[in-house]
Amino acid sequence: MERRDFLKAGAVPAALGAAGGLAAPAVAQQANRKVTWRLTLSFPRNLETLYGAATTFSRIVSEATQGEFTIRVFSPGELVPALQAREATSNGSVESCFTASSYSIGTDPAFMFGTVLLFGLNSRQQLAWMYELDGLGKLNRLLYEKHNVLGFPLASTGAQMGGWFRKEIRSPEDLRGLKFRIGGLAGHVFQRLGSVPQQIAAGDIYPSLERGTIDAAEWIGPYDDEKLGLYKVAPYYYYPGWWEGTGILHLFVNKPAWEALPADYRSIVHNASITATQLTMARYDALNPPALLRLVAQGAQVRPFPNTVLDACYDETVKLHEEYSRDPVYAELYRDMSNFRTESYRWLQLAEYAFDSYQIRRLRR
Amino acid sequence: MERRDFLKAGAVPAALGAAGGLAAPAVAQQANRKVTWRLTLSFPRNLETLYGAATTFSRIVSEATQGEFTIRVFSPGELVPALQAREATSNGSVESCFTASSYSIGTDPAFMFGTVLLFGLNSRQQLAWMYELDGLGKLNRLLYEKHNVLGFPLASTGAQMGGWFRKEIRSPEDLRGLKFRIGGLAGHVFQRLGSVPQQIAAGDIYPSLERGTIDAAEWIGPYDDEKLGLYKVAPYYYYPGWWEGTGILHLFVNKPAWEALPADYRSIVHNASITATQLTMARYDALNPPALLRLVAQGAQVRPFPNTVLDACYDETVKLHEEYSRDPVYAELYRDMSNFRTESYRWLQLAEYAFDSYQIRRLRR
Repeated sequence: MERRDFLKAGAVPAALGAAGGLAAPAVAQQANRKVTWRLTLSFPRNLETLYGAATTFSRIVSEATQGEFTIRVFSPGELVPALQAREATSNGSVESCFTASSYSIGTDPAFMFGTVLLFGLNSRQQLAWMYELDGLGKLNRLLYEKHNVLGFPLASTGAQMGGWFRKEIRSPEDLRGLKFRIGGLAGHVFQRLGSVPQQIAAGDIYPSLERGTIDAAEWIGPYDDEKLGLYKVAPYYYYPGWWEGTGILHLFVNKPAWEALPADYRSIVHNASITATQLTMARYDALNPPALLRLVAQGAQVRPFPNTVLDACYDETVKLHEEYSRDPVYAELYRDMSNFRTESYRWLQLAEYAFDSYQIRRLRR
Repeated sequence: MERRDFLKAGAVPAALGAAGGLAAPAVAQQANRKVTWRLTLSFPRNLETLYGAATTFSRIVSEATQGEFTIRVFSPGELVPALQAREATSNGSVESCFTASSYSIGTDPAFMFGTVLLFGLNSRQQLAWMYELDGLGKLNRLLYEKHNVLGFPLASTGAQMGGWFRKEIRSPEDLRGLKFRIGGLAGHVFQRLGSVPQQIAAGDIYPSLERGTIDAAEWIGPYDDEKLGLYKVAPYYYYPGWWEGTGILHLFVNKPAWEALPADYRSIVHNASITATQLTMARYDALNPPALLRLVAQGAQVRPFPNTVLDACYDETVKLHEEYSRDPVYAELYRDMSNFRTESYRWLQLAEYAFDSYQIRRLRR
């Protein structure tokens, strides 16, 4: 395994290379250097962390090609509604988009694995699985290519918070009847525990909490959450967001558009996506600490989910994965990711976790 | 802070841009597209994780420029001895090198901060500090440029292990008289605790431990350590390597060579270095877990350093930083990094650490 992975690491993944077919003849390549793509976003401009991932990516591609390859970034709704970005890329309305793979779970629940596994991998683990253990290749071959797109991580949020609650959560009983703004597969888990999951756009969360239409809402983490002002109407800020040990956001590229690129442009796009992912992770890690301090200063009450709540959620999550695993693609991705999770934590719990544990204990003294 | 950092994030850092001066006129740029650099390494070919970071970087640059910009990778000793790579880049014998900034602490102890801070930052924190909080800009302006080079991270190892010991370490007393193969500032700390730090090349560690010339040796982590076979002669494998919560390795570029590059090549080099850093981190995270299992199966005895030992090391480390901080550059970098460490762990201990803690507890059931 190691040798193969090592040789492959960082090269354009096999699935992506194959999708591109043989390189076009040199003459044709030189004649067709001017390329303009549209990239439609699922995230608004004021969510500058994620919006910035797209503009960083676009800038890197432009700089590397002396402006010959231009990727124009469009806000949600300018060309395509926020939640239809991947479909629009699949059907060729746009060449590319920046969205969450998980927004497509209505099409196929396996799209979840591109973003995160509930009680799954942390950010470093998810990227190791994608970049080094053929996880990205598997997603492309088993799923994305069937929907006429190729996928590349473009951002990683780090472990997310569990969200803002109007009342404290002391036991699994407190989840019963809770009107919780949460989507995706995590919403199904909360539903099994008696909550009422709600789908509400970011801009509507504050008034819904204020009016009591909902009791709780999850979003991302301190820096992004701060803008929504939720601490004023739902002061209990819970952690961890067990359903998002990381949040990987994707560049999807229409498959024919990818195949039309010359080989050097494909390499530039692929590597620019990796650079943007690293830089966005660094950006979150730099912006979240001062944002947390500001939120606490403004009255946010930070609370850990009780272990009884985490245990109840974990047990329901295992059952949910088993049910969805009747689908063979879901089953393969789940097995693959779960096995790596077990193997990886056996190692990370030593040097990495012990180092952080000691640092945190010293800080508390 | 956020706004400035956000705008700058991912752009060629100010210090680097300034070093490059104004872009050359377009005609001159087009006429001078063929560039060949030599890149000399401090790491041998059989250390494939780190060697691979250099070849990945070189490949990305070549692919992005259709082979016009070639970076030839040389093993230690082919052109320059392993530990003289940075000096050779400073004096222009080669255009670039891949080495540890910390290998230059004999020239100036502040070179340590490019690699790691003892009891310092973990990998994500160090890269956030470098890429987003102007840490890399500061290192370049305050230190690297004075030595006629520009520095870029090219690899991150993750938190390292504490090394291989012939006998168990039960208290700080067991460090007295211990002949420990360890370099850099960590060696100074162990010396203050009564150990006898030793500088021994990687290839000589095994026979030195076998003969009892030394009692212990640290190297990197499971995958790299496995090749040295140390479990056979020093079975106690301690964690964490508190002196290396991460290990950042650097591409250094000779300053005139950097200034001679056209703007698009500077952007390609900068971004390829970020891509290589992300991919090497993913590679370590993928390769270390199975290597740990193999080591344990072959008899390695994994042990945590006792808290009394960590506390003694921590206290000596604080004193050492205070002494070195008489130098104003060291003082500024230390203060800057320490402040971020405190702020960052206040945040990471919530979502990120609680998520990992729960996952590890579930795994142990």
